[in-house]
Amino acid sequence: MSIERFSGILAPVVTPFKDDLSPDIGRFLKHCRWVKSQNANLAIFGTNSEANSLSVKEKIDLLEKLISSGISGDALMPGTGCCSINETVELTNTAVSLGCRGVLMLPPFYYKGVTDDGLFAYFSEVIERVNNDRLAIYLYHIPPISQIPLSTDLVTRLVTDYPKAVVGIKDSSGDWKQTEAFNKLKLPNFRVFCGSESFLLQNMEAGGAGCISATANVNSLAINELFLNWTMPGSAQKQKEIDEIRDIFQRYPMIPALKEAIALNNEDAEWSRVRPPLVSLSRSQSNALKRQLEQVSFKMNNLFSGQ
Amino acid sequence: MSIERFSGILAPVVTPFKDDLSPDIGRFLKHCRWVKSQNANLAIFGTNSEANSLSVKEKIDLLEKLISSGISGDALMPGTGCCSINETVELTNTAVSLGCRGVLMLPPFYYKGVTDDGLFAYFSEVIERVNNDRLAIYLYHIPPISQIPLSTDLVTRLVTDYPKAVVGIKDSSGDWKQTEAFNKLKLPNFRVFCGSESFLLQNMEAGGAGCISATANVNSLAINELFLNWTMPGSAQKQKEIDEIRDIFQRYPMIPALKEAIALNNEDAEWSRVRPPLVSLSRSQSNALKRQLEQVSFKMNNLFSGQ
Repeated sequence: MSIERFSGILAPVVTPFKDDLSPDIGRFLKHCRWVKSQNANLAIFGTNSEANSLSVKEKIDLLEKLISSGISGDALMPGTGCCSINETVELTNTAVSLGCRGVLMLPPFYYKGVTDDGLFAYFSEVIERVNNDRLAIYLYHIPPISQIPLSTDLVTRLVTDYPKAVVGIKDSSGDWKQTEAFNKLKLPNFRVFCGSESFLLQNMEAGGAGCISATANVNSLAINELFLNWTMPGSAQKQKEIDEIRDIFQRYPMIPALKEAIALNNEDAEWSRVRPPLVSLSRSQSNALKRQLEQVSFKMNNLFSGQ
Repeated sequence: MSIERFSGILAPVVTPFKDDLSPDIGRFLKHCRWVKSQNANLAIFGTNSEANSLSVKEKIDLLEKLISSGISGDALMPGTGCCSINETVELTNTAVSLGCRGVLMLPPFYYKGVTDDGLFAYFSEVIERVNNDRLAIYLYHIPPISQIPLSTDLVTRLVTDYPKAVVGIKDSSGDWKQTEAFNKLKLPNFRVFCGSESFLLQNMEAGGAGCISATANVNSLAINELFLNWTMPGSAQKQKEIDEIRDIFQRYPMIPALKEAIALNNEDAEWSRVRPPLVSLSRSQSNALKRQLEQVSFKMNNLFSGQ
């Protein structure tokens, strides 16, 4: 049985926390619904979700609650890559059995300088253990953070050996030449997502599938407009407009800035909270972010209630 | 209640795996006993233990089995630092409640470029949650792998605010100036371990407490000899001799090489196995390692049975 592969815009959904730092399922669910209403699918448990500050148990619990609250697995691409094979398999099994259309999989990221052979053995062990036709892996290439590059050779080898299971990649290298290289592999029906909307037009022109970007948490309607109309006149202008918004967020640590924007838009300070080792924006950073977003008349559409 | 702090030699105990990659508790226990017989204590779940390729569950299970098999908590400094506060707390609680004399704690290592404030918040959250007088944390500084440096400012702040809980550091920066800087802080009764025996004599001269080194898995008797006699004539020669052995291992990826040496010494190929993303030594690497160890007449003392 074949599952339709993702395309378009996905948001690595930010995770709200309560006062005791436990995940705030109510606000999380509301934000997921809002992001969906803005025409983006949900890459929960990504880097911007502070997923690597969550325990495996917390992720399984959140995923089960999202699904039981009526979010369709068809919209979900949870991050399931941990450092250990067991935990990656446990989380991936949960995602697959709950009907998630795909999973975003980090390579194991503790040991550095590992070989393509070692990474291939890791991914193939995971795939063999999950052993499910409904498994659809999007590899997660984010060397600035994971410090583990995925070579085009490795990607080719994985897709060749597991053409049904390895179906795409998110490239958050921040380097267009790298995203271009993944597109140039021309692997059949392989979905290349850029990790920032600033490469969206280029990625679509190169044969890519869309983007999975932090700022899709706050600006997905506009980003999706470019995705839908990239062949039309005016696409360069659209690219420029979404870049302008991204540029503002990039002046700050991205995750706290996204949460702060949601807090500001919803007048809900609870949203500002991050888990250590991250730190929330300071009062003056928050004021500056507010001012900069107002200057470009940025407003998240269809504000959702902060509670 | 005050616990005696560690000093001397600890081995980051390598973890043997069965054919299905599950931890081999029988061989693990035998190796732990052998390392103890060679006058080293047991820093299980360190980098060299492939601890970050084990799940939290597996680590808890292994620790419980070690203790129930009669290994004393007094000899144990398990690594308990994970990326999420919850998992670090869970593992640390287990270690403390089982009577481990200390824990070796990595900083959260996924998010990069984090601030001292963020790291301080992380460690203090862990300490407050564990909330146990018997908690003794040895910070684990290994920037080449974790990519998260711990500044002397941060260390001083932690020891100042939690003088009973933060009792030492293992410095695996590979940079003597860094280990020296931790010693120069002159924090009261704070134990500075170097992460390689090649700095042992220097570390002792600078006021350090010993070393926690990969090669203590195979050569701890000789390393401990230097620790015991560093003020005596002949210490420079002893340093030279243990350096010679270390230099051989450093020609290979360290973890597979250590396991291969144990496999060779015990004529037990089971010991060669590593978990992906690591890769075992090739046949020719294994032969070369064997030859080089024979050339310096290296033999692990009191060979233990391989099962």
